[in-house]
Amino acid sequence: MKKKILQYEVGESVEVLLLIKSAARGIASNGKPFLTLMLQDQSGEIETKLWDVSKEDEQQYVAERIVKVAGDIQNYKGRIQLKLKQIRILQPHEAPDVSEFLERAPLTKEEMLEKVTQFVFEMRNPNLQRITRYLLKKYQTQFLEYPAATKNHHEFVSGLAYHVVSMLELAKSIADLYPTLDRDLLYAGVILHDLGKVIELSGPISTTYTVEGNLLGHISIMVGEISKAADELQIVGEEVLILQHIVLSHHGKGEWGSPKPPMVREAEILHYIDNLDAKMNMMDRALSRVKPGEYTERVFALENRSFYKPKFHS
Amino acid sequence: MKKKILQYEVGESVEVLLLIKSAARGIASNGKPFLTLMLQDQSGEIETKLWDVSKEDEQQYVAERIVKVAGDIQNYKGRIQLKLKQIRILQPHEAPDVSEFLERAPLTKEEMLEKVTQFVFEMRNPNLQRITRYLLKKYQTQFLEYPAATKNHHEFVSGLAYHVVSMLELAKSIADLYPTLDRDLLYAGVILHDLGKVIELSGPISTTYTVEGNLLGHISIMVGEISKAADELQIVGEEVLILQHIVLSHHGKGEWGSPKPPMVREAEILHYIDNLDAKMNMMDRALSRVKPGEYTERVFALENRSFYKPKFHS
Amino acid sequence: MKKKILQYEVGESVEVLLLIKSAARGIASNGKPFLTLMLQDQSGEIETKLWDVSKEDEQQYVAERIVKVAGDIQNYKGRIQLKLKQIRILQPHEAPDVSEFLERAPLTKEEMLEKVTQFVFEMRNPNLQRITRYLLKKYQTQFLEYPAATKNHHEFVSGLAYHVVSMLELAKSIADLYPTLDRDLLYAGVILHDLGKVIELSGPISTTYTVEGNLLGHISIMVGEISKAADELQIVGEEVLILQHIVLSHHGKGEWGSPKPPMVREAEILHYIDNLDAKMNMMDRALSRVKPGEYTERVFALENRSFYKPKFHS
Amino acid sequence: MKKKILQYEVGESVEVLLLIKSAARGIASNGKPFLTLMLQDQSGEIETKLWDVSKEDEQQYVAERIVKVAGDIQNYKGRIQLKLKQIRILQPHEAPDVSEFLERAPLTKEEMLEKVTQFVFEMRNPNLQRITRYLLKKYQTQFLEYPAATKNHHEFVSGLAYHVVSMLELAKSIADLYPTLDRDLLYAGVILHDLGKVIELSGPISTTYTVEGNLLGHISIMVGEISKAADELQIVGEEVLILQHIVLSHHGKGEWGSPKPPMVREAEILHYIDNLDAKMNMMDRALSRVKPGEYTERVFALENRSFYKPKFHS
Amino acid sequence: MKKKILQYEVGESVEVLLLIKSAARGIASNGKPFLTLMLQDQSGEIETKLWDVSKEDEQQYVAERIVKVAGDIQNYKGRIQLKLKQIRILQPHEAPDVSEFLERAPLTKEEMLEKVTQFVFEMRNPNLQRITRYLLKKYQTQFLEYPAATKNHHEFVSGLAYHVVSMLELAKSIADLYPTLDRDLLYAGVILHDLGKVIELSGPISTTYTVEGNLLGHISIMVGEISKAADELQIVGEEVLILQHIVLSHHGKGEWGSPKPPMVREAEILHYIDNLDAKMNMMDRALSRVKPGEYTERVFALENRSFYKPKFHS
Amino acid sequence: MKKKILQYEVGESVEVLLLIKSAARGIASNGKPFLTLMLQDQSGEIETKLWDVSKEDEQQYVAERIVKVAGDIQNYKGRIQLKLKQIRILQPHEAPDVSEFLERAPLTKEEMLEKVTQFVFEMRNPNLQRITRYLLKKYQTQFLEYPAATKNHHEFVSGLAYHVVSMLELAKSIADLYPTLDRDLLYAGVILHDLGKVIELSGPISTTYTVEGNLLGHISIMVGEISKAADELQIVGEEVLILQHIVLSHHGKGEWGSPKPPMVREAEILHYIDNLDAKMNMMDRALSRVKPGEYTERVFALENRSFYKPKFHS
Repeated sequence: MKKKILQYEVGESVEVLLLIKSAARGIASNGKPFLTLMLQDQSGEIETKLWDVSKEDEQQYVAERIVKVAGDIQNYKGRIQLKLKQIRILQPHEAPDVSEFLERAPLTKEEMLEKVTQFVFEMRNPNLQRITRYLLKKYQTQFLEYPAATKNHHEFVSGLAYHVVSMLELAKSIADLYPTLDRDLLYAGVILHDLGKVIELSGPISTTYTVEGNLLGHISIMVGEISKAADELQIVGEEVLILQHIVLSHHGKGEWGSPKPPMVREAEILHYIDNLDAKMNMMDRALSRVKPGEYTERVFALENRSFYKPKFHS
Repeated sequence: MKKKILQYEVGESVEVLLLIKSAARGIASNGKPFLTLMLQDQSGEIETKLWDVSKEDEQQYVAERIVKVAGDIQNYKGRIQLKLKQIRILQPHEAPDVSEFLERAPLTKEEMLEKVTQFVFEMRNPNLQRITRYLLKKYQTQFLEYPAATKNHHEFVSGLAYHVVSMLELAKSIADLYPTLDRDLLYAGVILHDLGKVIELSGPISTTYTVEGNLLGHISIMVGEISKAADELQIVGEEVLILQHIVLSHHGKGEWGSPKPPMVREAEILHYIDNLDAKMNMMDRALSRVKPGEYTERVFALENRSFYKPKFHS
Repeated sequence: MKKKILQYEVGESVEVLLLIKSAARGIASNGKPFLTLMLQDQSGEIETKLWDVSKEDEQQYVAERIVKVAGDIQNYKGRIQLKLKQIRILQPHEAPDVSEFLERAPLTKEEMLEKVTQFVFEMRNPNLQRITRYLLKKYQTQFLEYPAATKNHHEFVSGLAYHVVSMLELAKSIADLYPTLDRDLLYAGVILHDLGKVIELSGPISTTYTVEGNLLGHISIMVGEISKAADELQIVGEEVLILQHIVLSHHGKGEWGSPKPPMVREAEILHYIDNLDAKMNMMDRALSRVKPGEYTERVFALENRSFYKPKFHS
Repeated sequence: MKKKILQYEVGESVEVLLLIKSAARGIASNGKPFLTLMLQDQSGEIETKLWDVSKEDEQQYVAERIVKVAGDIQNYKGRIQLKLKQIRILQPHEAPDVSEFLERAPLTKEEMLEKVTQFVFEMRNPNLQRITRYLLKKYQTQFLEYPAATKNHHEFVSGLAYHVVSMLELAKSIADLYPTLDRDLLYAGVILHDLGKVIELSGPISTTYTVEGNLLGHISIMVGEISKAADELQIVGEEVLILQHIVLSHHGKGEWGSPKPPMVREAEILHYIDNLDAKMNMMDRALSRVKPGEYTERVFALENRSFYKPKFHS
Repeated sequence: MKKKILQYEVGESVEVLLLIKSAARGIASNGKPFLTLMLQDQSGEIETKLWDVSKEDEQQYVAERIVKVAGDIQNYKGRIQLKLKQIRILQPHEAPDVSEFLERAPLTKEEMLEKVTQFVFEMRNPNLQRITRYLLKKYQTQFLEYPAATKNHHEFVSGLAYHVVSMLELAKSIADLYPTLDRDLLYAGVILHDLGKVIELSGPISTTYTVEGNLLGHISIMVGEISKAADELQIVGEEVLILQHIVLSHHGKGEWGSPKPPMVREAEILHYIDNLDAKMNMMDRALSRVKPGEYTERVFALENRSFYKPKFHS
Repeated sequence: MKKKILQYEVGESVEVLLLIKSAARGIASNGKPFLTLMLQDQSGEIETKLWDVSKEDEQQYVAERIVKVAGDIQNYKGRIQLKLKQIRILQPHEAPDVSEFLERAPLTKEEMLEKVTQFVFEMRNPNLQRITRYLLKKYQTQFLEYPAATKNHHEFVSGLAYHVVSMLELAKSIADLYPTLDRDLLYAGVILHDLGKVIELSGPISTTYTVEGNLLGHISIMVGEISKAADELQIVGEEVLILQHIVLSHHGKGEWGSPKPPMVREAEILHYIDNLDAKMNMMDRALSRVKPGEYTERVFALENRSFYKPKFHS
């Protein structure tokens, strides 16, 4: 299989197909316009510069087009860059599907749906089960495609479902060890906690925040959705309130976006499971890019820490 | 008109009817039980001790009963106390209505309803007007009776409606001065911002938080109510989202209970109007209890500050 | 009337007179010096680059000179820039007055002075009135010309007086609604609260902080000025102390520059009025630069928030 | 089996043996001395007052003596109290062993030692295994007897070992789910992270901090112990440093007592496992004392939150 | 010489003269009034209770009266208390002077004045010297008598002058070691930094804050005084501004009461000298009350820390 | 003596030898690589650009080589830059020793060693003296060569020893003024407090953090070293614990890297001495680069403040 763009070393020459993620125009010191292109495939993204561009170039080299490029991998101020030798826009008929250039979860949609469905099946409280199934079905397509965030963690196609699947397995292990936990509340909380992101975010490609996402946020959106679902299903009972609370409080604190802190056992544990899975994901991604004996870049969402990769394993 | 309990000076003897607000049992150092009673009328509350109580006393002297008391006003560790000489429970047939002992807003329910209705009438945006009218009607009875809080500010019968009326007048003045403000958004925001308190709080007497209030809070409750109201009224449009945002963000910051900060002009101003009216209410109440040249007690909700009452006015 | 520089769209060609606000020298990658010029008229400012400059150019293109320029409006990394075709320094005899290029308050000095004078006239406490009138007269010229800040809010010619006029009107409305407020203290506080800025800042053009401004700040400066004014006018009384306190505490907290928090009713309200007017000014300016459905730039002094301009108004 | 002291309801009469945990002398308002005794058995502790005590009483009723008491369970200001009818000091020959009155872990020392030993046995890295086994053996007696803290969580006999056993099982589950984690580092970190408490704390009964505990803390103590152990065992290698770091950073932040934040994957995860197990323990203990539909007391170490026990389970 | 009240051990009987520092009335559980008296001599203060007091007693046992008492020293909840056997108010003719019961600085006023005068004499900058001498003379009487604070540090008669003398010696040592420091600025800053306390505080006995102290604070008061002094002495020059800045910034940060942080070398150093001397004073006082191997009470102004007194010195 | 690089004014031409501190490769807008060189001599460092470099150039112009350069001093965006005319790598045989280009302490190693030795000699407590002498000897070479930090303060060759010498003299002065301080503890604390930096840092040239430095920090390293030294010297006694505590707590707070705050008198004072000397060093260096009437750059480690250099001294 062909090497992906981030698998090349500095100094190597490449000739590959890449997707334009974004294009920004600048003026060089000689007064001529140039483009800064972010190019990507499934291994990640790389920056390149296209000098002395014409009006037509500016109209062609835009986001979501696929290009064939030849050039050299260089190190510029500690970051990898592509120094272009040749670049050409592929015509639609000759280009592969955009999805082939996007990073995605290591499991297929079908696998993830099956796993989640199995967990729903295991739930015993009919009220919690019905609400969970109803909302999962209502947003199933987006749930399986959306990333879990625009950056930080699980920021790839199907990242949301993948995050939920990992959390469900962690929830199961923890519920096995601590018998006072209500397994159904935990499972329902895990599945719904971030489901509001399918309204908060714009979609799996070039993900941004929607106006609703910016002004209300996925937490408030989903708390409202649970209330409507219960009305729709004519479910009355304290479970509805507790489930709303678990979703409401899963960021843990006011300054992190939860208007109430966890006040129910399963809410506190969901907050921990969410963090633990997100942090493992961020650490694994950062550490996969460095060698033993090196430090990762600082990771903003990990309190701006840099992590060390020990040498003694190698 | 008869003097109210807090209008007596230290050293004066009193003979009055009072409502028991709360009763707590203790054991004196001689081993005998006693009761600490909080007694109140419309001027506020005063503590007293009932020594050497019997089992029957404990069953009789409970919250929401009305008593006839005689005694002396004393100063105990800087706080006013009533030293009992005589006390007797009034029988239901001889006691006035409980409401006569409760502090309440300076306007009647009818006056406040009329004022609020007038503001709704002045709104021009039909979507905002219909949602506001719908929710006001749905919760009208409680809106006119509930306090605005269990303590801190407007913690009296009809405090919620009174707070809203003051804020509406302030909103009108501010909208007159700053023409970029959308008057309808401000009015709708003022009327609905705390309406969730009719679900968050238990009612106008011996007010506590409901479970829903503790686990979701009045902000999330009302954001959901607006969404349901719009569905019910088949209103679609950005106004609904903006109105939800204004309610959602009116505490200003995550650590104060708003999952999103104000991101729309009227949301920011509503936050200011709410604070300004609440703080005036707290300062006025604290300062009304001291003389010129004195300081108030520290007021927790005013960053624990003590306020000075200047002498030069007198 | 001719279009102002910020009224042109990207892509348009312009030919206008502009004032040089600042000029900074750089070295291009070809080793030759260039100048980065900030050019302004009353609509705001725009950046341009002047390449390959000579020693003479560097001496000519300096702050406060007026230039005639021709060029194109471009978008560079999300910011508007002017790409020069021609530029020429105007000789003093052919250039308009510098003041024609400066942004200024929407009211004239005369209008503002009349309004402020009217408020002083309405004051009833002779001590407060005399101190206010004395200090206003002492610094009248600067009061009418200075900006209210170097950036953030009311950072234009006569911004200080304009801020005071808006606040006076707001103070009047609030005093009408809350009868416990001392109207004279509020008016005196509003007029004097920022008057120390005429010593703290360098003046209306290219405004910077003076050494006195940096080392003492406008608050401490004005507290001292009130004390001297009272001595001068032989005024003795608690009003002097209270007025000093109101000025001293108007930033609200130690970390915002007030050595004491507001401890008098009018001090707390002045703090609110000041904030409310400043924030309206900042929001209005930021929102005036975007279209419905868009977000403003992040505004540092509004806790780095970005504001949304709703579409439903349009 | 006989009921324990905290299993009685308010209003019931009791006749039981209890251990004096502490005794404090006071002067009643009649001028006579009295004792406030904290009495305990394995269910927890209860306060009682002994009035009008003689010099001899004061010398007899001291910590660690066992008493036979008769009295009534009462509610005093919301807290359970014992109102004494009779009390008598048991002579050594008639009293049960002190250990019968102390709360302890639900597993025996032997069970816990076997579990921990099994985890050490499963470690594959010989350096980590040898250091862990060496330190565990050096402090084995105290490790199996000490509480994990003086208050907050696992504050009972053998609490330290019990906390470690729970964490080891959690670590195993998590390592099963996230294959990038080094299982040996996690196990060694779990076993050693709090082992310094055997020097920091005074012992299993009437636990206080030692001077070394106060001035250095268990983290710095154990980091030094690992260094000495490695010297002693002539182990050289990066594992030693990484293991020291994991212990050093397990409180997560400087303000929580770790001079360095976690900078290695397993250090971050250990911090989470430690927190999760401690919080489950605190929530379970607090919730076990309330009924469905009630709230727990505020728990200081859980950010002073109160937890709700849902009714729908019952 | 007779033992002072705090030099007695628990269990000893005493018969001494003491000054009443404060008297507060309470109601005992038998319904009778009692007084809580704080009694003091130069060694410190002790609490006692006077039971069953009459109206006349309440009028006699008031602050600043001197009493002859006999009783026993007792330990009540970890605090020393005096259990009264006899108490009698001394008549003015038989009582010693109040000053004999007040704690005071270890140097006489004359010694301190001489030392400060010597430092002023050594100053070389005539402007700084004249302002310092002028203000010192203006407030000399109070400067030599006032405490440096109502609590925390140097809270005894002449504490202000004593604090200044210690700081001057420290300033001299530091200026000897770091030649870039301007010795005159340091000396002037030390002498004037807290001089505003003679207006902020009520005086050396039963010290409280004045209204001016509460609303303006000693820092703003003294900054204004320096300005007036310079006007009076017709001194113009940057020294005046720098000296004002040094006083203004000596608390170091906004949240500690300085509207500007130190921005001049000597201002930063003055802040350190002030802290170092205050902290030594607090630590010495707290540690003087405990034995080797013990911890002090928590000291609020030392971030609520408790200090340990090592045993190895003994 | 020849002028050093930072002693030239903008506009002057220079011809000097300089040490390359670092070299970073970039790509110019013409597509050709260039190098950004940081060049230094004992007066400090200056940036320059080397355009259009070849592969060979990139291999030659690397850190720790010495170059002969000719060029002009320029001001680029407010920073001094060197515009190259000529540059040439010196061959080892023709180049001076690297040490001649490094900034170093104003005292020689011999002078500093003699001073420190004298202080050790004056210690009277044999345990503290022996531990101090032992550790000083163990790390003597590095102690005399290492900087005290990679940046902020004393970041030059022998900065660590120079910082210790200054602090010792300050400690002596303070111990002379406050007789309750244990002089030996202070001296031992000063000498050892930062000695762990010889393990935390990589050395005197191009100083970086070692892995041990990053993961443990100099404080934990030295606390462990003291423990081992005491074992080695068979010293038992509370002094060892107290000395460890003094080193452990010298950063003052958890968030500044000390797991325990100072809890012993000398620990608190050491923290102050350390800060005072570090801040004097930072202020002196920053102020030495500006003229009277100017402000320094913002200094990050001085809370990002800018300092003013008064004019009245000149």
